[in-house]
Amino acid sequence: MSSHCNESTVVHEGRVFALHRDRVTLPNGVDATLDVIRHPGAAAIVPVTEQGRVVLIRQFRYAVGGSIWEIPAGTMEPGESPLVCAQRELTEEIGFTAARWHPLGAIMPVPAYSDEIIHLYRAEALLPAKQQLDADEILDVHEFHYGEALEMIRTGKIRDAKTIAGLMMAQSGMVNPLPR
Amino acid sequence: MSSHCNESTVVHEGRVFALHRDRVTLPNGVDATLDVIRHPGAAAIVPVTEQGRVVLIRQFRYAVGGSIWEIPAGTMEPGESPLVCAQRELTEEIGFTAARWHPLGAIMPVPAYSDEIIHLYRAEALLPAKQQLDADEILDVHEFHYGEALEMIRTGKIRDAKTIAGLMMAQSGMVNPLPR
Repeated sequence: MSSHCNESTVVHEGRVFALHRDRVTLPNGVDATLDVIRHPGAAAIVPVTEQGRVVLIRQFRYAVGGSIWEIPAGTMEPGESPLVCAQRELTEEIGFTAARWHPLGAIMPVPAYSDEIIHLYRAEALLPAKQQLDADEILDVHEFHYGEALEMIRTGKIRDAKTIAGLMMAQSGMVNPLPR
Repeated sequence: MSSHCNESTVVHEGRVFALHRDRVTLPNGVDATLDVIRHPGAAAIVPVTEQGRVVLIRQFRYAVGGSIWEIPAGTMEPGESPLVCAQRELTEEIGFTAARWHPLGAIMPVPAYSDEIIHLYRAEALLPAKQQLDADEILDVHEFHYGEALEMIRTGKIRDAKTIAGLMMAQSGMVNPLPR
């Protein structure tokens, strides 16, 4: 099933993403004008310690008006593969490297209006490295028992979609399934 | 922890959301220019049948270039509460009403650049009603055993973040926990 783009206009070139307005003919023949975010993609990491604890960040997010719990993540730079992005962000945001990387798959956070893909990884065998935050990144690093993190989803303390998806998907294939 | 918005410019008023460019002073005193999507919010539903099957839709999404598996969902109309939106979308998109609605909480699909909140519900005791798709909505309705839907996440057949989060969160508090 495919559509045809009749005309695409760049409405805005942002620092991270662009906004396009596309006039399209949909697969059912209907014409529509659609606003679409064009995004380079991102990587996000579920870092798990030897003791089965997960590392989360409490990060200030202007768009939602405050600080929220998330897994470390970042936008892919030009020419960068998802895994390299993930490894870079793990070090920059929380000051760790990891010896074992397990790809969990890719998710679409807002398929209704953005082409953003987030590549998820579980990272284990963590080793200390040098944290290097950007000037506009405001975050604290915390560790939780995995079951406690899952409970934080249930109680609404964790509301970020990529974090919920990542914590769920990282459980599959764990060598020692973690208690909930 | 709070920020201060020094100037907000409307870059684009779209059909569903607006794009703003805000010059802000962040809680750490750093000035930044941030592109933010201002969105009215949405509701999404995990519809579960008496037999423990979940109803999913295969929907064409122009932004991601094809059809994907999702739970029924839609944007809130002016003055509409999240529950009313959910009930309206359940009927319009898949042609059911439901006698039992359980709120699962709200998630943020892209807190990095959008204020969108998606209110999730589990809907049970489904009854047939009249489907009423918009002209630009292209979707098919399917039922899956709940465990099969969870497997579709693991194999990458389901990649939509709200669907992954909804399917995970809808399991908690089920009267009869469903087999995985």
